[in-house]
Amino acid sequence: MTHHPTGPAPAVGPSIETVGWVGSARDGAVRLIDQTLLPVEFSRIDCRDVETVWEAIKMLRVRGAPAIGIAAAYGAVLGARGQGLGSVDAVVSSLRAAAAHLRTSRPTAVNLFWALDRMQRTAEAEATTAPGPEVLLDHLLDEARAIEQEDRAMCRAIGRFGAELLEPGHGILTHCNAGGLATSDYGTALAVIFSAVEQGKAVHVYADETRPLLQGARLTAWELQRRGIPVTLICDNMAPQVMKEGKIQAVVVGADRIAANGDTANKIGTYGVALAAKAHDIPFYVAAPSSTFDLSLPDGSSIPIEQRDPREITHGFGRQTAPEGVEVYNPAFDVTPSRMITAIITERGVIRPVTADAVADLIGT
Amino acid sequence: MTHHPTGPAPAVGPSIETVGWVGSARDGAVRLIDQTLLPVEFSRIDCRDVETVWEAIKMLRVRGAPAIGIAAAYGAVLGARGQGLGSVDAVVSSLRAAAAHLRTSRPTAVNLFWALDRMQRTAEAEATTAPGPEVLLDHLLDEARAIEQEDRAMCRAIGRFGAELLEPGHGILTHCNAGGLATSDYGTALAVIFSAVEQGKAVHVYADETRPLLQGARLTAWELQRRGIPVTLICDNMAPQVMKEGKIQAVVVGADRIAANGDTANKIGTYGVALAAKAHDIPFYVAAPSSTFDLSLPDGSSIPIEQRDPREITHGFGRQTAPEGVEVYNPAFDVTPSRMITAIITERGVIRPVTADAVADLIGT
Repeated sequence: MTHHPTGPAPAVGPSIETVGWVGSARDGAVRLIDQTLLPVEFSRIDCRDVETVWEAIKMLRVRGAPAIGIAAAYGAVLGARGQGLGSVDAVVSSLRAAAAHLRTSRPTAVNLFWALDRMQRTAEAEATTAPGPEVLLDHLLDEARAIEQEDRAMCRAIGRFGAELLEPGHGILTHCNAGGLATSDYGTALAVIFSAVEQGKAVHVYADETRPLLQGARLTAWELQRRGIPVTLICDNMAPQVMKEGKIQAVVVGADRIAANGDTANKIGTYGVALAAKAHDIPFYVAAPSSTFDLSLPDGSSIPIEQRDPREITHGFGRQTAPEGVEVYNPAFDVTPSRMITAIITERGVIRPVTADAVADLIGT
Repeated sequence: MTHHPTGPAPAVGPSIETVGWVGSARDGAVRLIDQTLLPVEFSRIDCRDVETVWEAIKMLRVRGAPAIGIAAAYGAVLGARGQGLGSVDAVVSSLRAAAAHLRTSRPTAVNLFWALDRMQRTAEAEATTAPGPEVLLDHLLDEARAIEQEDRAMCRAIGRFGAELLEPGHGILTHCNAGGLATSDYGTALAVIFSAVEQGKAVHVYADETRPLLQGARLTAWELQRRGIPVTLICDNMAPQVMKEGKIQAVVVGADRIAANGDTANKIGTYGVALAAKAHDIPFYVAAPSSTFDLSLPDGSSIPIEQRDPREITHGFGRQTAPEGVEVYNPAFDVTPSRMITAIITERGVIRPVTADAVADLIGT
């Protein structure tokens, strides 16, 4: 793992590529922003093997469902050359092994599995026709790059569809980070806000800090601030009060996996935000690309929920803040029932009301 | 301010006096646990002047509505000797000035004002009959000690009334710390749990960590652990998910001020817990002594809400976790409407349902 520190995080500026590939297919690396260091330090990592990508996903150096998918796709390219480029079969079997390992990094975001499935399908489809291992590797890199490029296009389409739902003067609550850092470069939930602002709609964002890992405080507040969009940081437990004070006209969040009926897994705390929005008659929007849907699951009850290290809660940010040995429950995600979701904003259009039929109509084809 | 470090926080044991008086009225001091250091370090502070008590309240070294009242009462004794003991008038006017200053320490918990009013009434009532300044000072210390002793009795009565509402096997969610550390030594919300356990009812407590200052993680988890009561620590945003999983059968929280109609100000996040409890049909109980009621306020809309330093959120763990200069909203309390409160448990009995008439019947006399 090579760090490329570039000093303090840039205070102002446009999109930044969250994860990409540098160099040739044969010698290149996955380059990604180490998001655990933001907002104090801006630093990129070059990953030259699958294990480093696995660790980066596991430790949330790269996070956000679409960005995890892109990182995994590039990671699969690294993996494909794991046994050298002696034969096409070696490339395919190396990629299979790498994909199997990368699948174990995090369980909830379905984009991880979606991207790895796609890379594996590409490798297997080309195995019989590829003129040689080097060409196959080039094609795999092309496929990973396509996943990244498609994500850019999808995020911008999500932004356009979602911006229609916001009005000038709106206060918008978001939870965790579904911004550029969670995707190729533009975001899902934040894409909706960026697009609205680009259309001239002045909005004010309230960002939940999002315990335990503070993606809202560290990443969302930073992204909005550097784009010059007014943002107020709050603790997660303040969101209901802010709603009660009439400051919120819409909630927009991302998603890690959406079941066939629209039930949505997203960062822990999202369900509580949805309950509070419901109590205050505030529309609750989910913004996610079609790759986030998992139509093999009829509803949210079968979405696997990642349990994480208790120390994220007891020793967050370098200091012990709970008694030694205390029992901790640390689910990384929760599931918001579809009946509490006003609409799901995808790159193909808006699902509203959120029903299994409406999901099937837009996503199932 | 003198620190008396006694090393690591005791891992097991009975009640500990949160705030008390050591020495004579003339030369003594207010001794209190510095709760900002828990659970890693257990240390007491001796306050020998009003300013030190003011700072201890402001910085939450002593916190929790009843404990703030007790600390302020003892602080008023320190203040009463501020101009020396030359005359009864000097003692009375010094106490008045001290009380006026202590009132500015924190705005929301009404017990602060209640205790200072009581100390001032005592001084003024005795001013004409006291044989001399030293005797008056002794009486003032007696009054402050009475406030502490009455709190002990009230907490135990709250515990007895509240324990009737819990059943063996219950999962109980609490927010912030309304335990021994928030009172003389036994708590309000936690008194209910302590009493239930003393009656042989085995319960399991889920403690919200309570951002930004983590009183749940630092204090509640510590108090329960050292009493051997099973406790699971969660982030605030996990409470709705824990309820959804069927793990919670009752919520019990404390209060900082209760209006005449039962609307209850408590630590920020309480309102969100109440919304989630309502959505899951879980009873939501407030436990507080009668000194927490402010019958001069018809409802919660006129309860003053303290706004605190943004750095509690942006630099909360000794490390910067938000971008430089980001706007922050940091209300220390919110108000839960009485219609969402199943019952209020006081030392005089249980108010249920929570209506202005029921409050007047039990508290207004």
